[in-house]
Formats: sequence, structure tokens, C-alpha cells
Amino acid sequence: MPLRLVSPRGLTSPRLRRAARDSPRLFRSFTSPARASVQPNGRYATAVGIAGAVALGVITAAYSPYSQTHCDAPSSLAIDKRDAIHKHESGITPSSPMRLKMESYIKEKQKEIVAALEKVDGKPFIIDTWERKSSGGGGISCVLQEGNVFEKAGVNISVVYGKLPRAAIVKMRADHKNLDPAVESLDFFAAGLSMVLHPKNPMAPTVHLNYRYFETMAEDGSTQAWWFGGGTDLTPSYLFDEDAIHFHKTIKEACEKHDKRYYPTFKKWCDEYFCVKHRGESRGIGGIFFDDLDDKDPEQLFGFVQDCLNAFLPSYIPIIQKRKNMPFTPGEKAWQQLRRGRYVEFNLVHDRGTAFGLNTPGARVESILMSLPLTAGWKYMHSPAPGSREERLLEVLRKPVDWV
Amino acid sequence: MPLRLVSPRGLTSPRLRRAARDSPRLFRSFTSPARASVQPNGRYATAVGIAGAVALGVITAAYSPYSQTHCDAPSSLAIDKRDAIHKHESGITPSSPMRLKMESYIKEKQKEIVAALEKVDGKPFIIDTWERKSSGGGGISCVLQEGNVFEKAGVNISVVYGKLPRAAIVKMRADHKNLDPAVESLDFFAAGLSMVLHPKNPMAPTVHLNYRYFETMAEDGSTQAWWFGGGTDLTPSYLFDEDAIHFHKTIKEACEKHDKRYYPTFKKWCDEYFCVKHRGESRGIGGIFFDDLDDKDPEQLFGFVQDCLNAFLPSYIPIIQKRKNMPFTPGEKAWQQLRRGRYVEFNLVHDRGTAFGLNTPGARVESILMSLPLTAGWKYMHSPAPGSREERLLEVLRKPVDWV
Repeated sequence: MPLRLVSPRGLTSPRLRRAARDSPRLFRSFTSPARASVQPNGRYATAVGIAGAVALGVITAAYSPYSQTHCDAPSSLAIDKRDAIHKHESGITPSSPMRLKMESYIKEKQKEIVAALEKVDGKPFIIDTWERKSSGGGGISCVLQEGNVFEKAGVNISVVYGKLPRAAIVKMRADHKNLDPAVESLDFFAAGLSMVLHPKNPMAPTVHLNYRYFETMAEDGSTQAWWFGGGTDLTPSYLFDEDAIHFHKTIKEACEKHDKRYYPTFKKWCDEYFCVKHRGESRGIGGIFFDDLDDKDPEQLFGFVQDCLNAFLPSYIPIIQKRKNMPFTPGEKAWQQLRRGRYVEFNLVHDRGTAFGLNTPGARVESILMSLPLTAGWKYMHSPAPGSREERLLEVLRKPVDWV
Repeated sequence: MPLRLVSPRGLTSPRLRRAARDSPRLFRSFTSPARASVQPNGRYATAVGIAGAVALGVITAAYSPYSQTHCDAPSSLAIDKRDAIHKHESGITPSSPMRLKMESYIKEKQKEIVAALEKVDGKPFIIDTWERKSSGGGGISCVLQEGNVFEKAGVNISVVYGKLPRAAIVKMRADHKNLDPAVESLDFFAAGLSMVLHPKNPMAPTVHLNYRYFETMAEDGSTQAWWFGGGTDLTPSYLFDEDAIHFHKTIKEACEKHDKRYYPTFKKWCDEYFCVKHRGESRGIGGIFFDDLDDKDPEQLFGFVQDCLNAFLPSYIPIIQKRKNMPFTPGEKAWQQLRRGRYVEFNLVHDRGTAFGLNTPGARVESILMSLPLTAGWKYMHSPAPGSREERLLEVLRKPVDWV
């Protein structure tokens, strides 16, 4: 598979271009360095994958109208059917296609994470399994609402088979030159795990995580373009430096098993993506964020994503255990509500995946908006007292800190 | 001023085109019927005026980056300065330019409405006066938070002098052909009053109102293109048919003093605009909404907007008086919180003006987001009990009703 270096100009936002300039070798792609520019909305399909909050609900939504148009006709050779037969007959082995290995892995991780969170909370999750009628795939949404520890917690997986229409292929080709722009449509697959946990106690931080795999397939089911994306980030209402350090340190260790440049590049990308631009502040104290990652062998990157997912429980469980029963005042609860309001603002105004999903007919809105808190608040011209902990948080959100 | 009939095709959204088809004579504009199409984002400047929630905060925000670029150089003949001299020397008379009459009128109405609402609530509004440093104009934000009756109430006015950059003029010219696309920039003026009231009692409905005037000026200060826009709509958590009927009846009477077609056309436009599309439901039970209104003499339309503004207190005060002290259960308060969540979703995801404002550097975010409730909530997969009042509301929101 010939890999060439993508020009930073080929990345569509100044943010991505900066990240690429800092670590160009991370941004290899199937693309010609001679390409001069990309349309502002050039990353049609990729944008779906950039979702911050619940990317997979969004991915699910995103292609359904096209899938309904192109895929309703039954085909004895449809890739999702063939994959189902493969799973049934051979199970998942190291030689199975990456899409099946990713699907199997995130299903396993969802169970493990849900079990661990139920142990922390003491209340069970509600589990909704849903199918995409218009095409292949479906999802499992696990939600815990008004628990003992979590105000609202969602752990979703989603697996989608669909058809990219020609317009999407042409745009996606900007980043993946081995896609044939002449075809009318192209099979794609997307699978991922996404999660948002909003604890009740204002001393305990909200956490978000999302890891996903995307590929396009030839008619025989073989992989064409592929990439991984995802990340995780922490959003405290009250900042405990030791929590921020622990969270970042755990992720950094997972990254460094694979590439020393990953953590600094993806940390920066995270600070830039999760920015509530109209407020001039970050949503939280960051973590990592990446997309279009195909700079190594797929097996190596799958290993990286597995290590990231495996780092989640060690990164968050010690924090929630420490904070879940801390005493707090009504004033501190009220401040948490205002921070929840900012979370809503980011997700509804700036998160590209959420916006794209909500504007797509047929989306599973409840899975997309699972990321919103149970309650949130807005006060006109609220400003924390000088020297307060609330003011310190704002200072950190306005100027991201290197925690490790 | 030569008026020609605009082709429904010339309106940029199917919604507007439908409205135009139903009542074509309302949609006169300075435009050629031969024009075949408009770019999807063709209504650059007009989009600013289409703001649902707090259009004027948005207008204020929208042009500041351009104004900073083009307007910082002092000019002894700047239109805002000349207007200030006119106001100082001659006061506002019937022969003053429309922009000064509109400004004077909305200032007067703001005082009147704030005084009436303070009487209902028993608590005073906080008044913030602000100026646009980069160019002419400013605003007055009157906000009442955690009152006796109102959880959050904002009554804003905003008056803006600025420069439209060439790109905006070219796009705006799609609807206003007498704009010269060859000039590098063009003076504009926008003034309006906008208001959102969120009562505490879940039996009392939220109300939104916004009326605005927009014009572009030649260098000598004479008016080129101009139009009025605005509307008002009601958002109950619990539906009382008599309230919906009273609200619509009062507005309809104001409309019918001027044109029998206004109410049915603008009622429909309102139902279509205030739609939480991803939920498949209206934000509330509607009212009226219009934009680009220049189908009559400006004085006549100013009279229409005055009658609309004068109808506000009679349309809403009897409703809030009836509902503000009604008993309610914690379950009914919780339902109100979910409806507040939908209000947030509409304003942050679908309201074009809010989105445009928030994405514009230098916006006065606190004035734009004054429209958000003090508190809101989201529950995963919430569904009202069959036959309940909550379910009846959803039915009405899914299929708008003709109340009068």
C-alpha cells in the first residue's frame, strides 16, 4: 500500500494543518502531495467520524438516506451478509478482516466498561439494541440515568454498513486518493465505541471517550481506504490538579507504547477541537483527539486503539472513586450546572458530528443526544468571585495546561 | 422605487418559496423575476436578520469583524455621527429617516414592556447599556433573573451601524437588486427589539418576540434597500387551548389592520421556522414570523410593526396573570425542564441567527444566549404517558393547529 506524505495544506482546518506541521509523519495518507487545496467542506465522510460526543450514533445517522436509496435491493453478496456468515462459520480470528476484529473488540470493551461502571454506581444500565433497517449494522446503547454516582452515563457501540454516494466519494478522495471517483457508490463500514459520563457530585469530572474505525470496501469485500479516529477528554467543574495529571499520565503511557509523538500531537489536537469558541474557553482539561490515523500498519494502529481503550478504566475509575462522595455546597452544585450548560453549548453548537447527525433525516436522535447532561443551567453575565476555585478553572480553560 | 414581483424560486429555502407561492404579493422585492436561482447561502446579510431568538445581539455581532477592518478610520461625515447630530439638533420628527424613528420607537417600547413585566414580577430588571467600539451603535440589555414570576426574562434592544463587505453585498443583491455589487463596502443600519421570557411556573408559557428594521445607505445617508422582519411565538410546557387562541387572536387582529394575508402567511412561516427538525416537532404553538418585508410603503410597514409590538402586552399579560400562581407537581416541573431542553436544542442547533452570531468573532455572547433558560434537562428516551397532557402537547407540536 503506497503511503505518501500529505501536505499540511491538504488538511482542511488551520488546527489540523498546525498539528500536521508539528508532526508531519503522523499525517500520511493515500494522497498526492501535489494537491493544492481542498474544498472547505471537503471531508464529507471524514467529518462524520470527527464527532466529539457520540460519533457512532452520528455515523449511523449519516448515511441512512443514501443507504435507503442504494441498498434496499437484496443482494446475496452484500458485504454485511458475507461478514455475518464469516462470523458465524469461522468466528473472529487474527486473520479476519479488521472491521470484524474492531466490532468484536468494542463489543467486548462495552461489556467490560459497563460492568465496571455498574460496580461504581450500584445501579444497572438500561440496554437498548437497535438495528439499521435500511442497511446493515446496528448498535447497542447502554444508559444509566439518575444513578447513585452518575447523573447520566451512556456507553454506546455502533456498527454500520452503508453506501457512500458519489458526491461523498469525490470529497473523501481529497484525503484518500486510492478511492475511485468514477464509481456511483462505494461500500463503507464504520464501527466505534462512544461514551459520556456525567457524575452527580460537582467534585467529580465528566468524561468523554470515543474510538472508531472506518473503511471503504471494493465489491469483493476487500479493504480500500481505512483509518482510525477517536480520543478521550475530561471536563471537571472543580479542578483537582492530581486528577488532571493522573488522567493525562495514563493516556500518555498508552500512547507512548506506540509512538512518542502521539501524545503531544493528539493532546494539542484535543485542546483545539474541544474549544467552546464563542466563549473563548476549552470544554474541559483535555486528553487526546485524533482522526484519519493510518500512518502505520492497521494491526499496529488497532493495537494502539486497544491500548487507549484499555487505559480508560485506569484513567477514570480512581478519580470517580475519590470524588463521588465528597461533600459539596448548593453553590458548588449550581456552578456545576453552569459548566453543564457550557458542555451543551459545545455539543450543540460546535461538535461537527453532532450537528451533522442532527441535520440528517432518520438519525437516532436519542443516541446522539445521550451526550447531553440530565440538567444544565445558564445565568446571564455570571462571573466567579476573584481568587475562587471557579475562577481558577476558567483560567485553565482559557489557557490549556501541559499536565505531564 | 420600482417594485417587481419576486419569483418564488428567488427565495432561498423551500419554506420561504412555499410562503411566497401562497401569497406572492407579499414577497415583492427589488429583484428581477428572470433570476434563475440563488446560492444556498445566498442571503448572507439577510440571514442575520432571520435570527429567531435574539436577532439584535446577533446583528451586533455579525458585522463587527468587517467594521473593525473598514470603519476604524474617523470620518467627519460618518452616518452614525450625522444621525447623532440630527437627533441632538432636531429630535425625532415624522420626517426623520426611518432608522431614527425605529430606534426611538423600540427604545420607548422597551421601557414600557420592562415596566409592565416588573409590575407582574415584583422584582426589577438589571439594565446593561453597551456600545460598539469598532463602529457606531450599541444596545440596552434588560434582564430579570430568578424573579418571583420569571425564571429568566430578557428584553434587549440593539442599534447597529456598520459596513457590509463586498461579499455580503453580492449575496444580498440576490434579493435586493438595487444594491450596487461593484462597491467595495456599503453602510448598513439595523435596529430591533428582542425578548424571551421564561416563567417559573410550568403552567405559564415561554414567549419570544423580535422586531427589526434593516437598511443599506448611500454615502450621503439616504436609504437604498430596506426591510422589516420579526415575529412572536409562544412555547407552553402545558397547553391551555384558551391561551393559544387568545395569543393568536391578538396577533391576528394586529395583522388584519394592515393586510388580511399577513396573519395566515406569517403564521405558517412561523410554524415552519420554529421547528426542532431533528425531533420532528415545533418549538411551541407558534405565532407569526416574517422577513424581508418591503411590500408596502415603509411608513405603512412601520405602522404594522408598531401594531405588532403594541399587541405584545395584551397578548401575553393576561396569560401570565392567569398561570403564574397555578399549583403544580414536581413531575410537572420536571416536564417543563425537558421542554426547556428542546428550547435550547432549537436555539443552539437550528436558529440561524444564533448560530451565525456565535460563530462570529467579537459577538456579545451574553446578549445572544440570554434566550436560553435558567435551567434545562434531558432524559434518554423519555416518553409521556398515553392520554396525558404531556402527550397532547407533543401531538400539537407535531402537527401545528390553526388556533383562530
